[in-house]
Amino acid sequence: MLINKIGEFGLIERIKKSIKTDASVIKGSGDDCAVLVFDKKRYQLFTCDMIVQGVDFTLKDEPCLIGRKALAASVSDIASCSGLPRHCLVSLAMPKNTSVEFVDRLFKGMLSIAKEYNINIAGGDISSARDVTIDVGMLGIVEKKYLTLRSGAKAGDIIFVTGELGGSIRGKHLRFKPRLKEARFLAKNFKVNAMIDISDGLASDLSHILRQSSVGAIIYEDLIPVSKQAAGFSEALYMGEDFELLFTLSRKDARKILRKKLTDFKPIGEIVERKFGLRLIDKRNRERILQPKGFRHF
Amino acid sequence: MLINKIGEFGLIERIKKSIKTDASVIKGSGDDCAVLVFDKKRYQLFTCDMIVQGVDFTLKDEPCLIGRKALAASVSDIASCSGLPRHCLVSLAMPKNTSVEFVDRLFKGMLSIAKEYNINIAGGDISSARDVTIDVGMLGIVEKKYLTLRSGAKAGDIIFVTGELGGSIRGKHLRFKPRLKEARFLAKNFKVNAMIDISDGLASDLSHILRQSSVGAIIYEDLIPVSKQAAGFSEALYMGEDFELLFTLSRKDARKILRKKLTDFKPIGEIVERKFGLRLIDKRNRERILQPKGFRHF
Repeated sequence: MLINKIGEFGLIERIKKSIKTDASVIKGSGDDCAVLVFDKKRYQLFTCDMIVQGVDFTLKDEPCLIGRKALAASVSDIASCSGLPRHCLVSLAMPKNTSVEFVDRLFKGMLSIAKEYNINIAGGDISSARDVTIDVGMLGIVEKKYLTLRSGAKAGDIIFVTGELGGSIRGKHLRFKPRLKEARFLAKNFKVNAMIDISDGLASDLSHILRQSSVGAIIYEDLIPVSKQAAGFSEALYMGEDFELLFTLSRKDARKILRKKLTDFKPIGEIVERKFGLRLIDKRNRERILQPKGFRHF
Repeated sequence: MLINKIGEFGLIERIKKSIKTDASVIKGSGDDCAVLVFDKKRYQLFTCDMIVQGVDFTLKDEPCLIGRKALAASVSDIASCSGLPRHCLVSLAMPKNTSVEFVDRLFKGMLSIAKEYNINIAGGDISSARDVTIDVGMLGIVEKKYLTLRSGAKAGDIIFVTGELGGSIRGKHLRFKPRLKEARFLAKNFKVNAMIDISDGLASDLSHILRQSSVGAIIYEDLIPVSKQAAGFSEALYMGEDFELLFTLSRKDARKILRKKLTDFKPIGEIVERKFGLRLIDKRNRERILQPKGFRHF
């Protein structure tokens, strides 16, 4: 049987079943970061993101932006857990006929984002390969009281997103700004019940929250902010690589956000009981079940 | 200019120059692990190793052993710093037509070594790619008093290795046992001045110690343990992927090892002043300068 038969998430579920972790792992695979015991008041966050030539970027893209994306994807994972990034390692594989200039520009992009977010590039590994492949392992820190996971959404919560969705392939996937500042603001001022970053697409990533929180959701086409770059509404639902935050708040906290006119955070729907699944109310007020499809490697 | 013109280590030196880290990084790139501030008595170790189909393994190899190697290489890095591994993340890229059985066996190998060394597989990332590529990011812990780096070797030290060298391509590169137990034994019972694991070959890895410690070395062909798998002595010097420990001890501590007949640790030469460079005394008592050549990706 081939992996594209069971799909990316089928494969992950299959692998997860075989893995056991000890008490020092607060949360293992299945969230944006692994959450590890650190000290009395804080957890350590640990995440990795691999990007591959021909899948996540092409050699026609500006190497600075490729390097930037390699680190930014992990920063976005740390942001989803409301933490702060601290250190990273960079594994880089590339063909022997790669130019030194390409590598220089790749690292220029990495260093720019490392500087912007106060991240130490503490080492790495270099290898040869047919395709340029970059894997970043990143460590972060989060105060225990601020940690946000995919689980924790409650029926009655209001669902919010940052920014605009869809069309990332037309540029944003290489230039997105990880929503670290926004995540920290939320964690410090509200009780965020669940949070994820939108990497596979709104429908897919919202489904992760629903499954891990054992709840359902109703979202409204009218409310979902669609990027000008998007070719249509379905890209806002399914394209992925928006790297925006998707999170849920109690109605009380949601009212605070709306009253304060914090327009960086847009309500798009509400959490309901699990039995409702994931539903979309379209502009003509028709209701339909949304499939959790989105970007899949297999 | 292409990267194979400046070579793997030229490229690493070039990248290192552009990277700055803050005080929470005790040791950044240029050692087996990054060494990070952790708590009063301990440092955190952070390392990554990427293995690529066609470079580090082929699809004819047993998938269990490929998975095993992916983790074992990082365990060996942690051992070089005299630490204990704790957690890892696995980034896995592979073609869409990979079989589920291949992935199952890959993880079976990873899980076996994770269990053997008490390592939590705390998560990972999955991607598609033309070639199977596995990157493991690993965290470990080391008591401050036990930390061993490549720097620290002193003129007069005796140089030791574990195991036997050469011929790893004939099987050992997939089956080696990371020398974690030996490294911990050494750290607890002796003052290890410098340590590295032999991944690129004895000549190359000893050169890393020499450069970072600003010293030279004389080693003796007679004393270097050559594996039965090696096609000749030069493989013991240059082949790499032995994943044995290479370390230096003061003469006093070296005498203790020899007196106690700890035959797991074999003396192969001595550290001398830097001006002597790296020299080999062959079986006919002739002296020659050893070039720090070994396995190079570029």
